[in-house]
Order: sequence, then C-alpha cells, then structure tokens
Amino acid sequence: MIEEKNNKEVNEKLRTQLQRVITLLNKYKLLEGFVNLQDEMNKALAESSVQKENLDELRVLLDNLHPADIADLLEALPLEDRLLIWGLVKSEYDGEVLLEASDAVRETLITDMGTHELVAAAEQLDADEIADLAPDLPQNVMEDVFRSLPIAEREHLRAAMSYPEDSVGALMDFDVITIREDVRLEVVLRYLRRLDELPDHTDQLFVVDRDEHLKGVLLINRVLVSDPDMLVSDVMTKEMITLHPDDNAEDAAHAFERYDLVSASVIDQNKKLFGRVTVNTVIDFIREKAESEALNLAGLREEEDLFAPVLKSVRNRWVWLAINLVTAFIASRVIGIFEDSIEKLVALAALMPIIAGIGGNSGNQTITMIVRALALEQINTGSAWKLITKEIGVSAVNGLIWGAVVGMFTFAIYQNVELGFVMMMAMLLNLLLAALLGVLIPLTLRKLGRDPALGSSVMITAVTDSGGFFIFLSLATLFLL
Amino acid sequence: MIEEKNNKEVNEKLRTQLQRVITLLNKYKLLEGFVNLQDEMNKALAESSVQKENLDELRVLLDNLHPADIADLLEALPLEDRLLIWGLVKSEYDGEVLLEASDAVRETLITDMGTHELVAAAEQLDADEIADLAPDLPQNVMEDVFRSLPIAEREHLRAAMSYPEDSVGALMDFDVITIREDVRLEVVLRYLRRLDELPDHTDQLFVVDRDEHLKGVLLINRVLVSDPDMLVSDVMTKEMITLHPDDNAEDAAHAFERYDLVSASVIDQNKKLFGRVTVNTVIDFIREKAESEALNLAGLREEEDLFAPVLKSVRNRWVWLAINLVTAFIASRVIGIFEDSIEKLVALAALMPIIAGIGGNSGNQTITMIVRALALEQINTGSAWKLITKEIGVSAVNGLIWGAVVGMFTFAIYQNVELGFVMMMAMLLNLLLAALLGVLIPLTLRKLGRDPALGSSVMITAVTDSGGFFIFLSLATLFLL
Repeated sequence: MIEEKNNKEVNEKLRTQLQRVITLLNKYKLLEGFVNLQDEMNKALAESSVQKENLDELRVLLDNLHPADIADLLEALPLEDRLLIWGLVKSEYDGEVLLEASDAVRETLITDMGTHELVAAAEQLDADEIADLAPDLPQNVMEDVFRSLPIAEREHLRAAMSYPEDSVGALMDFDVITIREDVRLEVVLRYLRRLDELPDHTDQLFVVDRDEHLKGVLLINRVLVSDPDMLVSDVMTKEMITLHPDDNAEDAAHAFERYDLVSASVIDQNKKLFGRVTVNTVIDFIREKAESEALNLAGLREEEDLFAPVLKSVRNRWVWLAINLVTAFIASRVIGIFEDSIEKLVALAALMPIIAGIGGNSGNQTITMIVRALALEQINTGSAWKLITKEIGVSAVNGLIWGAVVGMFTFAIYQNVELGFVMMMAMLLNLLLAALLGVLIPLTLRKLGRDPALGSSVMITAVTDSGGFFIFLSLATLFLL
Repeated sequence: MIEEKNNKEVNEKLRTQLQRVITLLNKYKLLEGFVNLQDEMNKALAESSVQKENLDELRVLLDNLHPADIADLLEALPLEDRLLIWGLVKSEYDGEVLLEASDAVRETLITDMGTHELVAAAEQLDADEIADLAPDLPQNVMEDVFRSLPIAEREHLRAAMSYPEDSVGALMDFDVITIREDVRLEVVLRYLRRLDELPDHTDQLFVVDRDEHLKGVLLINRVLVSDPDMLVSDVMTKEMITLHPDDNAEDAAHAFERYDLVSASVIDQNKKLFGRVTVNTVIDFIREKAESEALNLAGLREEEDLFAPVLKSVRNRWVWLAINLVTAFIASRVIGIFEDSIEKLVALAALMPIIAGIGGNSGNQTITMIVRALALEQINTGSAWKLITKEIGVSAVNGLIWGAVVGMFTFAIYQNVELGFVMMMAMLLNLLLAALLGVLIPLTLRKLGRDPALGSSVMITAVTDSGGFFIFLSLATLFLL
C-alpha cells in the first residue's frame, strides 16, 4: 500500500518508469524483429511466453500511474512507441489521458482509435470535459456521444461547446451544489452527508432561489465553524466574485490570482446560476497561455508534437520564417542602395551588423516592458508620454555609452577617427529609434484592438535592422566619402 | 452593501477608479501649485476646505479597494503620484499592499516609510509573509519585528527565511490544523466549531501523532459526507502528496497542476509536519516564473518598475546589451576576414544579412521546442538522437524551399546564376547548423547543470550570425571570385 508519496520521489519514480517503459519496449520490439526471421512455430512460442510477460509488466506499470502521468509519458515517446503504449493503457483511463495530453499529441492518439473506443472514452467524462475534446473528435463520434448522454448533460455539452476558447465559458464546469437560504446549517450538513462525495474543489455551496438565481455563497469553512442551528441566510456571504460565460478567460484568471479564489460562480445575464470555474482549470489556462506566448515569440504557430513528422513541423513553422524573409529582403535592399559607398569603404560592410544587432536587442527590451505593462493595465493616456520620455532617456544613455565603446573598437581596428565617430552617432540614433518604436508599436497594436505581443518583436527587429543599416550607411556616405 | 461583484464590472471599475484617482491627484496638485503663489491666508483656507475634500474623496476610494487592487494602482502611477497615494492608504492595509506589489515597486514604497511604520506593517502579516518581505526591509526593522513576535512565530520566520527563493520552503506557510487519528469525526467537528475561522484554502486537516509525525490527511469534503460516528483513522487518506522544504518549487508547482491540489503538506526528513503549500501561492509562483522567463529572453535581468529612473533601467538592461555587443563584434570580425571578397563583389554585403537572419529565426524555433520539452521531462538519452535527425530534416526541407526562393530573388536582382546558387547553398547550410546547435545548446546546458533556457537564444543567434556570414562569404569566395 502506498503510505505517502513524496513529490520529489514521485518525480524520480516517473523518470525511472519512463526509462523502464523504454527498456521493456525495446526488448519487446527486438524480439518481434528477431521472431520475424524465424518460422511460425517459434513465433507462436515467443508470443505466448516472453513477449506476453513483457507486455504484462508494462501493463502493470501503466495501471499504477495517474492519467496525467500517462499523458506525460506518451508525450515523451516517438510516435510508434507511443501508439504501442497507448494500446496497453486500460480503457477506463482513455478519456482522462486524452484530456491531459497536449493538442498535438492528442491528435495522434485519436487517429489511432476506433469510433467505438472513442465514444466509450468520451462517455467517462463530464460534459465540460467532452467539450474540451470535441474539436479533435470526428463528427460521427460526437453524434454518438451526444445521443448517449442524459438530457441535462446534453444541455451542458451544448452550452460548453458554444463558447470560444478564451472565454470563461470554455473553463466552466457544471459541478455545483446548490442550497436554499431559508434552511438551517444542520439541514445542509444532513443533505451533504447523503451524497457519496462532493465535487472536487468544492469550497463553497451556491445559495439560489426557486428560479436558480444566485443569492449568495455559503463557504464550507464557514459551515464548519458555525452553529448548526443558524440559518443559511445568516451565514452565507453576498460579497462574492461572479463571472459571466462570455467574460475574457484572462480576466477571470487575474481575479483568481488577485483574490486567491478556489472556485467562482458563473451566472447568466439574469443572475441565474450557470456553472462554476475552479482553480485547477485556471492553473492549466495560465500555463497554456504562457507557453503559447513563448511559442509565438519564437515564431512557432502552435504547440508542436516533439516527434511530429518533418513535414508537419515545416508547416507549423513556415509563416514566421516567411515574414522574417520579407523583412530580411527589405533590409537587404536598404543596403543595396548604398552599394557604391560600401565599394569605396568596405569596412562599412563589416561594421553595419553591429548597429542593427544592438538596436534589435534594445528595442526588444523596451517592447517586453511595454507589453507586460499593457497586460497588467498599467498604462493610461497620461502615462504613455512619460514612458516614451523614459525609454528615450534610457536609450540616450545606452547610446552614448555603447556608442563610445563601439567607436573606440572601430578606431582600434581601422585607425579612422571619422569612422569611429559615425559608428557612435549611428548607434545612438538607432537606439533612439528602437526606444520610440518599442513604445509605439505595442501601443498602436493595442489601439487597433490587436494583441500587443503578437508580432511586435518581429516588427521592432525589422525596423532596427533596416533602420540601422540606413542610418549608418547614410551617415557614412555623408561624412566619410 | 455590495450585493455581488461581477468580475468584468470589477475590472472596469478598477480602470475607472484609476482614472478617478489620477483626476483627483491632478486637481490636488494643481491647487497646491496655485496656492503657493498666494499669501499665507489663502493657503490656509484652501488647505482647510477644497484640498481636504479632494484628499478625503481619494481616501474613501482607496478604503474600498482590495489590497491587491491598491498594489496594482500604485504600480500604474509615476513615482511622485505613487508616494502621494501611498500616504493615503490606511495603515491596516500597508502590510498586504507591500506583499502584493512587485519587487521593484515595493522598494520605492519601503524607501518612503519610517522604521515605525514598517514595523507596524510587518506585524500585520504571518511569519511566511514577513519572510517574503524580509530581503527588502532594513536590518533594524527586521530586528524590531523579530523581537515583537511570539516565540512560535519567531521560529516560523527563521525557518521560512532560511530557504532559497526557488524552493518549497519559500512557498510554505504554517497555517495547518492538526488532529489525532483515534478520535471520532464528531469530535473533529466540535473542535473546528470552537475556532473563529479556518485558515484560507483549508481543504484538508493533517492527521499527526504525538510527535507531530504526519500519519495521513483528512479531506474536508470527506468529513462532510461521512458518518460523524466514524473514526478519523477510518476516513483519512494515506495516499497523499508530501513536499520537503528544500524540494524544487517548480516540481511542486507541477504536482499541483498534475494532481489538481488545493494544498499539500510539507514535512521534514523525519516525516514531521512542518507546514503546507497552498494553490494561491503556487499560482503566483507560476506567473512570476513565466514572467521572469519572458524578461530574461528579452535581455532584462529582472522585473523593472515601469517608472524607474533612467539610470536604474540602464543598470537593469546593460548585461545583455554587453553580451550582445561581444557577439556582434565577433560577427563583424568574421565579415572583416572577407573584406577583399566584398570589395570585388559588393552584392555580398547586401545579401549576407538574409542568411544570418533566417538562420537565427529557425534556430530559435528549434531551441524553444527543445527547452520546453526539457522542462516537461520529455527528452531522454534514447530520444535525443531522434530529435536531432528530425530537426535536421525540418531544416533540410526549409533550406531547400527558402533557399530556392532566396536564390531566385538574388538572380532577379543581380542577374547572376552563380550568386543565386551560392545563396541557396548558404541558406541550406546555415539552417542545418541552426538545427544542430538548436538541439545541442540546450542539451549541453542541461548536462552542465545549467538552466537550458537562460542565454540559449543569445547563443544560437551568435552562432547563426557568425556562422551564416562565414558560410556565405566562404562559398562566395570559393565559387564566385
């Protein structure tokens, strides 16, 4: 019996188990390969004994894992091995594992399953969970699942599927316990005792009237410390955070962070209780959001299966490479204008990437600050101007310091005072350009109703590249030639 | 009375309130300036009536805000206004607001407070919260605070302060309710009822023996659905996740995500109960971690006050600019080697940034994938080789496609078939280099025990810049000149 699981040991155990699974898999595959060379007799023999043992050992290993851990294990395996293991997972876990897997890996698992298996897996889940899987499930599977559900669940599924991905509706579940305000706590306690278990993350009961309108919430912790003779209406709290299903999920996540919530009610326009959002869903949302931002920054359109086929990965990555190519072409043509100058003073060619590079780095620093401040609502019309002057100030100081360093470096190599001076001036001007646009690009994107983070790094780099080349080469043409 | 707060409305209200605060502040500051020009009589008059009214209105506004919201408001104000508002916040909130503010802003607030005020603010907090503030508090304040605490709290504070920032010890609090296993649930319920309230996020009680060794946990939800006559030992669960204070906080956060925890116990080597970690702390940790990664990627050393003085911001940003400058110098010297070639065919200067740029973009895509997979423990010795071949495959396909595009672009502009061909080859080779090092750099950093994310983007860009210039210019020198 498992007495207690220390988390560090759990992590190490998971690592060992992954290694063990791979070893067993290799043993299995080796034998399979070997057996193919032998005659049928031997094959039957091998299958019946050694191979079965290997598979059984794998199955036992998998049965002892949490579905979330199985999903992680599947993510870490190349496609072929992944499907072999997936076939061994006990079918009661199928639904949970699909839910925990990343979108990209989930797709590979679903492709491998039959209609019947998929329907069975979906039926193990709650309506809100089925809704999460729905976009990946074939049409006919969804129809079968839908038909197999009780009426109330169908309504829930329909509702959960009708909300866009980044809305509260998509995070919502329907596991709410409702009570009336005119009963005593003792009655509530007796009512709860009749249930087999409470839904996960039940930290409050929802107090509603006959028409399901939310009147308040009764915190479980208050129930425990209050006199059982008291009325719900005396113990319940009316000060609570409520969400609407079309609220922005990001805002809801901020409310959970800010007010340290475990669950929050979701109500419709008429204050009718609709469902709830729980903190575990919010954590998953925050993590996914942070990850998708990191992916977008690096020019990956979406989460990618680590072992995706080459062509699939190419498709996931081409958009940003194409955009980058266009900006690179433009920068190249800017240099093209000054080919005469470069021909006369070839040192320019070696020096120009320095100006462009530092400008890009500095611009990205500014943009990161501004995007973060916009996300936290820290910028208003009054402070925008203050920010521009501050960033210009930072760039001026940096431009003078690094400009001087770069100027001296240039002089040391080329023994040309004017060239060093041009480098310094170009550095200063490009950093000022980077600061100005580092503030203006995200503010403008926001004003246009776009996500200020998306693409702003590419844009600033394009500006500091082309701009840096232009500034440096024009100054050089003016003062040196 | 506040009946119910809809989150969307709360957000809008916060925005309006920030605007209102700014309006009031400006009104106040305008009058102050005006008054200075008048004689003393008028000044006294103004101070006693209009100005007082303005300040009072601000004070009322602030009193109705949650400390977390006040902290947000302070973050969004320039330094001078921030300190004016900070003076108006009621002192009972001081501790909470300091706790909620970001490190950079907290520093500005603390600098503005006297020893006495700081001690009073700290005394409102729990030991684990004081420990969070401790690094920012002056030595003498910490000594006063320490002396004012009861013995048990002192022990907690000492313990909480002894753990590094990224450990479970730093996330831990001490608000645990412990019970014995040989009592009936009814006794537990009666015991709870004697308390005024339960600590936030109490979803389980900790079952310990006489020596405080953890025997199991009693889930509140199980208490509610079980017969009060049952013994704790029959209802409690022994299957639970436990943490050690020196465990990695990131691992603990993964456990909360994976197993949907609300709280988890922290025990020492001898299984003695030490404290607990709750989900709200974990959410804050996840958010901060994601943010500091985003900041590091952009070359900001740490979180920066949006309205920090220019020189402070320069200090925060110089390290990465300096590193970037070194890599840019190296790239510049690589080009320097080929100055003769560029002099002969000046088109090379215009074309070389294209090769370097796309290489950098593609390398960063690979590195992001690998860093993410490493964080999720998806890479083991067996799969590393598979990943390299996959990334090489993706690069080969991209190299051929984009190489062809670039080659045709080059031919269209310079009417030179050989030059187009060299561009295509250079593109292909630089993308292959980017793929190879995009996998190897993070894997090597990890093997050296370093954070695979930190600096790997700078490194890959350095390689694809210098490498790209070298590949392109050597090929051009070999085949064109």
